[in-house]
Amino acid sequence: MYRLSEREWQAYTEKNKDRARMLISCPDRPGIVAAISHFLYQQGANIAQSDQYTTDPEAGRFFMRIEFDLPNLEERCEVIKAAFRPIAENFDMDFSLVQASKRKKVAIFVSKEDHCLLELLWRWKSGELYADISVVISNHPDMQETVESFGIPYHCIPVTKENKAQAEEEQLAAAAGADVIVLARYMQILSPRFLDDYAMRIINIHHSFLPAFVGAKPYEQAYRRGVKLIGATAHYVTEELDAGPIIEQDVQRVTHQEDVDTLKQLGRQVERTVLARAVRWHLEDRVLVYGNKTIVFP
Amino acid sequence: MYRLSEREWQAYTEKNKDRARMLISCPDRPGIVAAISHFLYQQGANIAQSDQYTTDPEAGRFFMRIEFDLPNLEERCEVIKAAFRPIAENFDMDFSLVQASKRKKVAIFVSKEDHCLLELLWRWKSGELYADISVVISNHPDMQETVESFGIPYHCIPVTKENKAQAEEEQLAAAAGADVIVLARYMQILSPRFLDDYAMRIINIHHSFLPAFVGAKPYEQAYRRGVKLIGATAHYVTEELDAGPIIEQDVQRVTHQEDVDTLKQLGRQVERTVLARAVRWHLEDRVLVYGNKTIVFP
Amino acid sequence: MYRLSEREWQAYTEKNKDRARMLISCPDRPGIVAAISHFLYQQGANIAQSDQYTTDPEAGRFFMRIEFDLPNLEERCEVIKAAFRPIAENFDMDFSLVQASKRKKVAIFVSKEDHCLLELLWRWKSGELYADISVVISNHPDMQETVESFGIPYHCIPVTKENKAQAEEEQLAAAAGADVIVLARYMQILSPRFLDDYAMRIINIHHSFLPAFVGAKPYEQAYRRGVKLIGATAHYVTEELDAGPIIEQDVQRVTHQEDVDTLKQLGRQVERTVLARAVRWHLEDRVLVYGNKTIVFP
Amino acid sequence: MYRLSEREWQAYTEKNKDRARMLISCPDRPGIVAAISHFLYQQGANIAQSDQYTTDPEAGRFFMRIEFDLPNLEERCEVIKAAFRPIAENFDMDFSLVQASKRKKVAIFVSKEDHCLLELLWRWKSGELYADISVVISNHPDMQETVESFGIPYHCIPVTKENKAQAEEEQLAAAAGADVIVLARYMQILSPRFLDDYAMRIINIHHSFLPAFVGAKPYEQAYRRGVKLIGATAHYVTEELDAGPIIEQDVQRVTHQEDVDTLKQLGRQVERTVLARAVRWHLEDRVLVYGNKTIVFP
Repeated sequence: MYRLSEREWQAYTEKNKDRARMLISCPDRPGIVAAISHFLYQQGANIAQSDQYTTDPEAGRFFMRIEFDLPNLEERCEVIKAAFRPIAENFDMDFSLVQASKRKKVAIFVSKEDHCLLELLWRWKSGELYADISVVISNHPDMQETVESFGIPYHCIPVTKENKAQAEEEQLAAAAGADVIVLARYMQILSPRFLDDYAMRIINIHHSFLPAFVGAKPYEQAYRRGVKLIGATAHYVTEELDAGPIIEQDVQRVTHQEDVDTLKQLGRQVERTVLARAVRWHLEDRVLVYGNKTIVFP
Repeated sequence: MYRLSEREWQAYTEKNKDRARMLISCPDRPGIVAAISHFLYQQGANIAQSDQYTTDPEAGRFFMRIEFDLPNLEERCEVIKAAFRPIAENFDMDFSLVQASKRKKVAIFVSKEDHCLLELLWRWKSGELYADISVVISNHPDMQETVESFGIPYHCIPVTKENKAQAEEEQLAAAAGADVIVLARYMQILSPRFLDDYAMRIINIHHSFLPAFVGAKPYEQAYRRGVKLIGATAHYVTEELDAGPIIEQDVQRVTHQEDVDTLKQLGRQVERTVLARAVRWHLEDRVLVYGNKTIVFP
Repeated sequence: MYRLSEREWQAYTEKNKDRARMLISCPDRPGIVAAISHFLYQQGANIAQSDQYTTDPEAGRFFMRIEFDLPNLEERCEVIKAAFRPIAENFDMDFSLVQASKRKKVAIFVSKEDHCLLELLWRWKSGELYADISVVISNHPDMQETVESFGIPYHCIPVTKENKAQAEEEQLAAAAGADVIVLARYMQILSPRFLDDYAMRIINIHHSFLPAFVGAKPYEQAYRRGVKLIGATAHYVTEELDAGPIIEQDVQRVTHQEDVDTLKQLGRQVERTVLARAVRWHLEDRVLVYGNKTIVFP
Repeated sequence: MYRLSEREWQAYTEKNKDRARMLISCPDRPGIVAAISHFLYQQGANIAQSDQYTTDPEAGRFFMRIEFDLPNLEERCEVIKAAFRPIAENFDMDFSLVQASKRKKVAIFVSKEDHCLLELLWRWKSGELYADISVVISNHPDMQETVESFGIPYHCIPVTKENKAQAEEEQLAAAAGADVIVLARYMQILSPRFLDDYAMRIINIHHSFLPAFVGAKPYEQAYRRGVKLIGATAHYVTEELDAGPIIEQDVQRVTHQEDVDTLKQLGRQVERTVLARAVRWHLEDRVLVYGNKTIVFP
């Protein structure tokens, strides 16, 4: 099977052991790039990639993503963060510094549909998602065997109206330590308390149509309206349902010939592709949130 | 200039002089295709293309588009229609029979933005839209020179709240005889009375987004939400604003880097492409309306 | 797991038990459609879908695909074929009549890369490919466990220069009874004798680029040329390498930032999508071959 | 007509009068970004956008595009270039510094097909191409009236086998001072001497197919092979025909139903879109050439 052996994971880790990613945002003003790049040069870093975006030339906000290589990153990482703090304070920066070789922990939530889950597992096995999928959590037992065949623990935590608070406690416990939660067609609404714990670290996927069809049975509505495109949107989850910052979108052409079932099948294809891209970009620290929108660095 | 000479128009007309298109819809039941094709065979027709669609195998509605060649079509057309009527009645059919060589008359309505208008004129000049553009009607004088340089009459009919009914009378008079009206970014709402006169013969283009942004300044809203796709929808105009049967849709990828002006520019590109496709399909009698949706025969 | 239960397979089969598909090709002349549809009407069939294509209005070839419903299809199928033969002879037709409820037997050949195989298995399990995957044949043992977990027999038949003829015998025996063979990244060339046995019934997938890069290491060549699109082509296998009739193609945008490994990853995504579409269309009897090209009925 | 008035051009110019773009390439090593950004900070510049790309982390080549705002750019531009030279020498850099408000001079070459020319003129008029189109040069008289109606000089310079060298002299004279030459379906091969004068400043557009069809009548070949995609490639012209660095590519889906003429029409749509994008990116100094490939900064 085409899957990463332990040796290949190690090769990747070894290759990237000195690679760091820095994400920065602050009010725009002259001198930011100079200060950052001078600092990195002094530390002995070599900048491999760097992208920035300013919301507005005048009085805007500055965003930057830098990848750099720095010898002995592992042992020097905390020292460098500490050394950077005065610069960060001077420019009123939010910043994070992560090691590319550290696999993020991913918890996947799923209900009964398996297409998004399987796409993520497949890409993970083939080495396209550099992460540890630490757990799959479901309100149904259906996918236990599949998930466990990938060597991943499966927690079945049924959710009902009555036990919702309790169930979320169990979910949080099962997901403990996750860096990101992926809702791979998880058909339950999470409580504000849950969302607070994972602000901008929960990725959801849902269908999208032009125009949007509100209410129940969107595919049936789309069919009746005869849409020519069906799509999917991956976004961070916020309290307002399906209205959080968009990470990725894509569409698929359809015609009058597709019946509702075929529209749903095609919708599933778009959903799994779009979700997999969004998850990859998040894992590679490419996504910054600003207001209710994302900046996705290329 | 790459444009159809009178000789080329004539060559097209000559080549298609015996080509007919038949559009049929009726309740589905066995024997429809047999009856139609037997009739055409008896008339000496050769079917060049034929597509059908049934909404539902059980108790559905049957739709068909046939292209056929029939010697001396011009003189026999009315006779054939009359001969077909008994079959149509027997199957409770709506049907139309048109000669492919007859250019439809198109009236284009436009306000101040010229991108959709120019796209239509360009495709018309290059022979991609087989039609007579009989008039361009605008509530502004801005495009008179451009339109007249294509040899097309331009009617400037200003529309205000006060004169709206009177202005529509003038528009209807100026468009008299039009087979189809194209709203190429015409920023006025037409009255129900006007729509009645041209039911399912008025094509409009508007932007579309995932999700839909209602209210004013949609591009500004889309920018603030950070959408990754912007699109356009061409549809037949009905009384409910922008909710008529969709003919064609398409999208264009964007990123956080595009500012509002660039989003609008990209939106214009999608709009002109989508509108031009929809108009072409209408002119080629490929579009049938059913409920609030279209069937677009390939 | 989202997979068709035996009950769902049976529901599909039951729903389609009277659905037939007829594929016809013959020299074009008037009266073909009339003869076919009259025949079907006499048999009591109701045409659900019908598409035709004529290569050239004058002296061209006529192609048709009809789906119809006919009570008690199973028992009457052979009788109907026999009854149709005189019409077929009269018009010099090639024709086939298949029952939509009969699952085609598919043999999948694979080497070491699993992305195309897994996509097919996934779509099969989710009910998008209505077929029996009767065997997976590989020249490597790697995917045995995966394939068998889907309940499908796995034959590992190593192929070397020396044993090639013998190995092909074994492959043909293992695939015996297959209606179609899918080369899901099978990296061996099949002999003319093998191809003869399965003419226009072997589907292959390969990468494609604009422009084409001949010779070894195409992704490396594409990277060096800085292509902005990478694609894949699914085609029927003929003796001339990768030059058989094209069933489906698609592309994916890339930029200078993608390295060779990422280009290959993206290429794999396109490959699996394109192959899955081609296989589905073949299974639904939508593909007719004419010269070195295909007609893919919608 | 939706076109930029002189006032709007001036508004754009005024808005961008202090905006500069810097393009840099050099061998990669630590400290480059620090040196550049420190220099710009000292000059009082505010970096608005910055993108970089390194071909290979080890021993690769570094490429950078920076947009920055600097008060009184116009008068200080030459001084700043001079001040930057020691840094450039130290890092062995190639660099250029341009003012965003300076419109580049574009000469367009065209033969008989007008679709690419008209697209460029339309986008220029609507303000999407910030440039001066200083001249259109053709070997045919056909488009004189159209071009002159845009207020642009038209030079008809017939080219024959016999007068080719002389004709190129006239073309070079007519194009004198052009920053970039766009071959908008110009069907003549330029001599090496001509290419030398405009190395990586001549943009061409041509059709592309999967697979590539070499030799005459590619659309006819593509039709016979039944391709499912047709495309276009915009590239810089080099001595090897159609093999220069690719700037942009795109495709359009087709089916067996499109005849050769329709394929050509669709091909024209792709060509004009792809060429217009490539020209815009060149005008905005987004394209760097490296070996036989381009880096297109977003």
